[in-house]
Amino acid sequence: MPRRVAIVGTGHSKFGVRSDASIPELAWEAISEAMKEAGIEGRDIDLVVMGNVGGWSSEPLPAIVSLEYAGLEGKPVYRVEAACATGSAAIKAARDAIASGDADIALVFGVEKMNESPTPTVVEFIGRAGNYFWEFENFGLTFPGYYALYATAYMSKYGATEEDMCMVSVKNHYYASHNPKAQFPRKIDVESCMGSRYVAWPLKLLDSSPITDGAAAVVLASEDVASKLTDSPVWIEAIGAASDTSNLSKRAQFTSLRAARLAVEQAYKRAGIERERAASEFDLAEVHDCFTIAEIMAYEDLGFARPGEGYMLAREEQTYIGGLIPVNLSGGLKAKGHPLAATGVSMAVDIVRQLHGRVEKGRQAPIKRGRAIAHNIGGTGHYAYVTIYSSSKPR
Amino acid sequence: MPRRVAIVGTGHSKFGVRSDASIPELAWEAISEAMKEAGIEGRDIDLVVMGNVGGWSSEPLPAIVSLEYAGLEGKPVYRVEAACATGSAAIKAARDAIASGDADIALVFGVEKMNESPTPTVVEFIGRAGNYFWEFENFGLTFPGYYALYATAYMSKYGATEEDMCMVSVKNHYYASHNPKAQFPRKIDVESCMGSRYVAWPLKLLDSSPITDGAAAVVLASEDVASKLTDSPVWIEAIGAASDTSNLSKRAQFTSLRAARLAVEQAYKRAGIERERAASEFDLAEVHDCFTIAEIMAYEDLGFARPGEGYMLAREEQTYIGGLIPVNLSGGLKAKGHPLAATGVSMAVDIVRQLHGRVEKGRQAPIKRGRAIAHNIGGTGHYAYVTIYSSSKPR
Repeated sequence: MPRRVAIVGTGHSKFGVRSDASIPELAWEAISEAMKEAGIEGRDIDLVVMGNVGGWSSEPLPAIVSLEYAGLEGKPVYRVEAACATGSAAIKAARDAIASGDADIALVFGVEKMNESPTPTVVEFIGRAGNYFWEFENFGLTFPGYYALYATAYMSKYGATEEDMCMVSVKNHYYASHNPKAQFPRKIDVESCMGSRYVAWPLKLLDSSPITDGAAAVVLASEDVASKLTDSPVWIEAIGAASDTSNLSKRAQFTSLRAARLAVEQAYKRAGIERERAASEFDLAEVHDCFTIAEIMAYEDLGFARPGEGYMLAREEQTYIGGLIPVNLSGGLKAKGHPLAATGVSMAVDIVRQLHGRVEKGRQAPIKRGRAIAHNIGGTGHYAYVTIYSSSKPR
Repeated sequence: MPRRVAIVGTGHSKFGVRSDASIPELAWEAISEAMKEAGIEGRDIDLVVMGNVGGWSSEPLPAIVSLEYAGLEGKPVYRVEAACATGSAAIKAARDAIASGDADIALVFGVEKMNESPTPTVVEFIGRAGNYFWEFENFGLTFPGYYALYATAYMSKYGATEEDMCMVSVKNHYYASHNPKAQFPRKIDVESCMGSRYVAWPLKLLDSSPITDGAAAVVLASEDVASKLTDSPVWIEAIGAASDTSNLSKRAQFTSLRAARLAVEQAYKRAGIERERAASEFDLAEVHDCFTIAEIMAYEDLGFARPGEGYMLAREEQTYIGGLIPVNLSGGLKAKGHPLAATGVSMAVDIVRQLHGRVEKGRQAPIKRGRAIAHNIGGTGHYAYVTIYSSSKPR
């Protein structure tokens, strides 16, 4: 029987263009908050797992420079990378270490400083994160282009409109307007989204998550230790993970991500959740809306809507508080920002605070079941990590 | 009680300048051999942990392109990085997942293709892997320079000579001459080492590990599964890990690596080994000889020699077969080659084959205790991973 693992502390930097802070400084904003919340000191930490995609920084050992700055040099540490799902993969690695008995307390942090990217540019660098040779070098595909392929396939097959996608952006900006840590804490309307310039038709600027600097951190603990540190641990109930082909051209389907479906299936099986009833099992979900079409696909891959009906949830505002299931009350990648490796950790931070009932007014979900889900995608569906968090102790 | 974890399959590519193979092709050489040895198929694998430092390749998602090429797309996967200790960190991560019950069978592979590095050059890129700002950018320190500082400190404090360091290189080349997978499978003598050009005084070309392309893989399994797959599992008995400051200028000592001492202490404690008797506890050791001085420091950090006496082991040929403890019978980083992320996995591969008594004649250690140790350093002592392998089931 593996040991149960809980989150006992959370930390989150301001997301945005953070030319005021270096990588270790950004990391420290999140780490110091998480350690304080957990009530621990450096000597209590048995393992550090650091998430960072990098490639845009001159620091090739960001884990080490961050630990030295945080006064945590000496700790066992490694860096994890799973593209934009890095943060969730890092949480899984630390969870495994604690569950196995290797560590009692682990610190996980994800940090990214994307705005200082040298050549290649951020867009070029991210664009390579499919199959470099076949799809970037030969066809010039970048990430807006990839997700535009999903959007056109989805629109053509199911009749969704550009307005439906803009509805996702409007919702996420609405909730970001209540989240002071968000990169864009301001509301937009469908008209301004529809009027924003095309990045890759049918996706517009306001369908797209931004280039973000930021950090997030969580402290994980074993059951015994968690019970000493806090009265309100949030348990990692189940994790599902999967991957998919490097080449998009080898995928069988473009209106759903196979990796996400596999990861969801694994997570639901482990938590004993029926896919058909999934929307009623969670108080809220944080999903990977790198582009608005991705959030619509996520609704379907998570079982919140049947295939081809996800866009109706957006159109009918069913993923606001009070609807079928509230989604991305943090502002999502779209409006909170998307510092790649920080994103999965940021989802965990916001979910813990939501389950505690302590986020800002206007974006706090009613907490009834004490359960929430994070859906974190890497690349264009190359990686998927799905994590179920619960304020009740898992069986 | 965590589940015991064993290595049940090993694979190793030819190390060298591998312009004949892409990253996925190199990875497949090792993966296919390890899967065949373990007698498993793709469907049996629950988790893949991929080690890659990268930075010299145009592929930013090497794990994904390698899995697609290997027909393993869909599997849960993430990439681990801990500089030159990446391979050992990846093994730890997979070990934790199996020990925790998350997976029964995991594939770990490390691959690096360093010879195709664009700008920055390999030497520049590696040189950044300390503290970029203070030590690379401001002082121009590269890795030969860092290790030359260790060498001069050691020589000055203890009276070791350049010949002593060359003795390490001569031994490692001798054993590499019996290892067809080595980059330099040929003997050298002290005279040729002493006559080779200085890279950073007192370190010469033949004190230095080369720039290498290569891959290595292991299949790990839980106790139950391992017993079905093989009659000769090699158990991961204990792992110790630690880190140190980013800045060398903040280290208290330059003749020993604190991270290594901490990792050794943790591993020995977990395996119930007394440091004073360490040399008699193992049939062989694979240690991190990125430069010859590093192997001499490793003797001391592992407790095979007292501080300041490690060079005497080299001088007196005590780390050949028949001596106090055979070290780097694979040829070591120096002569087998050092494809960063593959190195820790390569150590595991060679140790398993040694413990099975099935490596090439001339470099097979006598196996009496059925126990061996791998000492894998990242950066200039920024990371340290120490892993104890045993052919007897750990308590």
